Amino acid sequence: MKKRIFAIISKADEGDRASKVFDNCIMILIVLSVVSIILESYRNLAQNYAVAFRIFECISIAVFTVEYALRIWTADLLYPGAKHPRLRYMRSFMAVIDLLAILPFFIPFIPLDLRFLRMVRLLRLFRLLRVFKLGRYLDAFMLLMKVIRKSAPQLVVSIILCAFVMLFSAIVMYTVENPEQPEQFPNVISSLWWAICTLTTVGYGDVYPVTATGKLFASIISVIGIGIIAIPTGIIAAGFSSVIHERSGGDKESDGKEYCPYCGHKLE
Amino acid sequence: MKKRIFAIISKADEGDRASKVFDNCIMILIVLSVVSIILESYRNLAQNYAVAFRIFECISIAVFTVEYALRIWTADLLYPGAKHPRLRYMRSFMAVIDLLAILPFFIPFIPLDLRFLRMVRLLRLFRLLRVFKLGRYLDAFMLLMKVIRKSAPQLVVSIILCAFVMLFSAIVMYTVENPEQPEQFPNVISSLWWAICTLTTVGYGDVYPVTATGKLFASIISVIGIGIIAIPTGIIAAGFSSVIHERSGGDKESDGKEYCPYCGHKLE
Amino acid sequence: MKKRIFAIISKADEGDRASKVFDNCIMILIVLSVVSIILESYRNLAQNYAVAFRIFECISIAVFTVEYALRIWTADLLYPGAKHPRLRYMRSFMAVIDLLAILPFFIPFIPLDLRFLRMVRLLRLFRLLRVFKLGRYLDAFMLLMKVIRKSAPQLVVSIILCAFVMLFSAIVMYTVENPEQPEQFPNVISSLWWAICTLTTVGYGDVYPVTATGKLFASIISVIGIGIIAIPTGIIAAGFSSVIHERSGGDKESDGKEYCPYCGHKLE
Amino acid sequence: MKKRIFAIISKADEGDRASKVFDNCIMILIVLSVVSIILESYRNLAQNYAVAFRIFECISIAVFTVEYALRIWTADLLYPGAKHPRLRYMRSFMAVIDLLAILPFFIPFIPLDLRFLRMVRLLRLFRLLRVFKLGRYLDAFMLLMKVIRKSAPQLVVSIILCAFVMLFSAIVMYTVENPEQPEQFPNVISSLWWAICTLTTVGYGDVYPVTATGKLFASIISVIGIGIIAIPTGIIAAGFSSVIHERSGGDKESDGKEYCPYCGHKLE
Repeated sequence: MKKRIFAIISKADEGDRASKVFDNCIMILIVLSVVSIILESYRNLAQNYAVAFRIFECISIAVFTVEYALRIWTADLLYPGAKHPRLRYMRSFMAVIDLLAILPFFIPFIPLDLRFLRMVRLLRLFRLLRVFKLGRYLDAFMLLMKVIRKSAPQLVVSIILCAFVMLFSAIVMYTVENPEQPEQFPNVISSLWWAICTLTTVGYGDVYPVTATGKLFASIISVIGIGIIAIPTGIIAAGFSSVIHERSGGDKESDGKEYCPYCGHKLE
Repeated sequence: MKKRIFAIISKADEGDRASKVFDNCIMILIVLSVVSIILESYRNLAQNYAVAFRIFECISIAVFTVEYALRIWTADLLYPGAKHPRLRYMRSFMAVIDLLAILPFFIPFIPLDLRFLRMVRLLRLFRLLRVFKLGRYLDAFMLLMKVIRKSAPQLVVSIILCAFVMLFSAIVMYTVENPEQPEQFPNVISSLWWAICTLTTVGYGDVYPVTATGKLFASIISVIGIGIIAIPTGIIAAGFSSVIHERSGGDKESDGKEYCPYCGHKLE
Repeated sequence: MKKRIFAIISKADEGDRASKVFDNCIMILIVLSVVSIILESYRNLAQNYAVAFRIFECISIAVFTVEYALRIWTADLLYPGAKHPRLRYMRSFMAVIDLLAILPFFIPFIPLDLRFLRMVRLLRLFRLLRVFKLGRYLDAFMLLMKVIRKSAPQLVVSIILCAFVMLFSAIVMYTVENPEQPEQFPNVISSLWWAICTLTTVGYGDVYPVTATGKLFASIISVIGIGIIAIPTGIIAAGFSSVIHERSGGDKESDGKEYCPYCGHKLE
Repeated sequence: MKKRIFAIISKADEGDRASKVFDNCIMILIVLSVVSIILESYRNLAQNYAVAFRIFECISIAVFTVEYALRIWTADLLYPGAKHPRLRYMRSFMAVIDLLAILPFFIPFIPLDLRFLRMVRLLRLFRLLRVFKLGRYLDAFMLLMKVIRKSAPQLVVSIILCAFVMLFSAIVMYTVENPEQPEQFPNVISSLWWAICTLTTVGYGDVYPVTATGKLFASIISVIGIGIIAIPTGIIAAGFSSVIHERSGGDKESDGKEYCPYCGHKLE
């Protein structure tokens, strides 16, 4: 029976109807859970249907708790040769998310602040990522992840450089604009908000320089902003280019072009 | 005569003057149709020349109806061996657009709401895409379409990820900013509007965070926004790179790599 | 003497001091001409130094006229074997710019509107492009131009697609927002201004949707906007990639890798 | 002893604990120095803890001075064979930054303006760049720098082109909008602020055209703005692609292409 339960809660094989139904039910419950967060944000809905929201919340927590328990119980089938399969499963990223999303409802001494609870329920959103495991986009998702993982060190460096430029701009802008606009640039942290809005080219327009020096400096920063956007874009583009090239290159070589299939002579 | 009509309404061959004149007339009528939508949006023009607009509308509907009927009539010449050539033509994307653009004017029980009619007439805009079939940009358009088609699964995944980040940001931002700005962030859907404006770096400035937590979070989201823009750009850049490389690579390979240099046997 | 003048007014050879002095003088005069346009925009400067600006204008027109005359006179040395060297020179892009920048001052029946004159003088800015011919950035500039020229058809197609999406969004947005905000979206052309601001992610914030339908549609358009920015970026990135690849590939091949330099056997 | 001090102040070798402690202390002092700049920008903190800030300032200046002196003293160990190792060290970028960050506190006749001092202390931020020398991101940082250095001439040309378009737009916009909005576009320099905000797609929304001609022109400029962002992105993407390709290509070529497959002679 344990094997059957494991088969049902893991990714559905072709033809296993019970497993597919289970997958879809959990997915629908996650989506409904997210929808209920959105709907509860409308004050009149939250007041008129308070009981319905509460009941749905209890049901979903119950289902997620049972699911979590079953996954831990069948963890030894997931990692057949592992020493502590349950511990290993509990340490996995998805299991931690799952636990955090249900835990607070079972600990009475955590102050059940509404905002804190909403944040916790938000964690269920991460479970939506499982949709990639089911769908036909798995391959494209894997490619995307591979590119991001390969480009990670360069992306981190470009983010550090970006943070450096932001901090530098914020301090300069505070120095330049504070005497003129003490309310818009009261301190360096407020100035940092301006720097981020400008360098990411969002430009809300709630804070902007008014002095000539400030505008000159903001202009230089804006132009640098183009470059800062260009760097991660360039990294990711090159990453995709390289991964796609690798793939098609790998296929080509394995197609027998390395050796002439007729005379066996090595080509090149 | 049917063959002659088919030759006229299909893409003009070199030297077929009647067909070219027909193509150009239809194209001019489509452009005029779009121009009339723009002009009708000026209230005083719409009132003073109401009759002229009405007459032009009737003429263009008549022409488009005749054209649609002729295309269905000659569909068996377009798909020579097909079983149901007319049905097959009617199911094609362009034929559906054509039908939708004229149909509402012939169904009396559809409430002829002005706004609904305008939307329907807008569908004619899609017919402008035919301009690519005629012009010298066909090759570049095909390349563009090929790149987008090849990169489609990765683009879809990056859009799903983007939607995920947007939803996440919207819920967090609503939780953080709602108590402070109940009018700007009344519910999660309104907050989603902010998230989309920020992540796409449009930044109208109609809604923005004012609390310290909100600004901190918005800063993180803005920086992630750069990355989110970088992903589709990178995908498309790599797609173009790969397609262009393939093309020039194809030429290179035909320069002697097709045959084994030792035994002269054709490879693959 | 004609040959000497031609040598002076064309690009300076190494060691030809007179030619270099001439090049630099013209360049300084162009820069001063642009600076004078900027300075004249300050009302108090324009009023107090009106005579100085007028004198400088007359001098620069005189110099540019003499230069233009000399270039036409020596055109037969520029195109040695051509039939009508002067006509051919006069039809070149730079010569037309040069003529347009001086012509209006010699035709009395053109109404000498101040704004019109300023625009005409602005044409001299194009002459600054000559700086690339002189400097050490010629190579990089040529590379940039080559990439843009090679990617031109695809860029044109992406701009046409972009214009198509803009027009479509503008008509939809006008239909949706006009009843609610008749002053912000009075007609399709005003709505087009919003569409361009949004799709280019500039987002001034002077016009934005307020209705739920409008916001939903604007969200979709903003996300498409990312894609629209991604396409030209991708095209140019792939163009650079291809040109740089070609270069290093070309150099490599001409370095004798096609044939083994020792045994002369063809490699590959 | 001099060798020991040199070992301590240069990059820590594996196992050299004293050197690592020194590196970390200096890094912490730099970070604290930056944090103190941020904290001092809060008026109430600056007033209440004025003495604490002053003491911390004196300590950090003292430490940085001693460090600078030690680095000059041991410069002959850094450049073993150089003629004037100390002069050579003092001319290096990092040494100049270090000197500028401490010098003003020792020159009594420089007017110790608070804003000037803050700017000077900001130079210490550059010392944070040393973090890359220590961390595990050195490789990614080097790759980034290599790409930027290789793409530098093309980036400079694209910035010059960008400046050219900005100047052109500013003059045109001033001519078009000045009569209508004399306060928003009082002169060409103010108009340049608009041009930069638009072309970098920041779009604060403090200045925007209101006339039809101005909007038409701004639309064209915005679309060109996409292209202007595309160029550096494309350059950097191609640069990364080329550098990554080179790396993996280098590996590939050493897999047998280095030697002629016929005579076995090493190629090049």
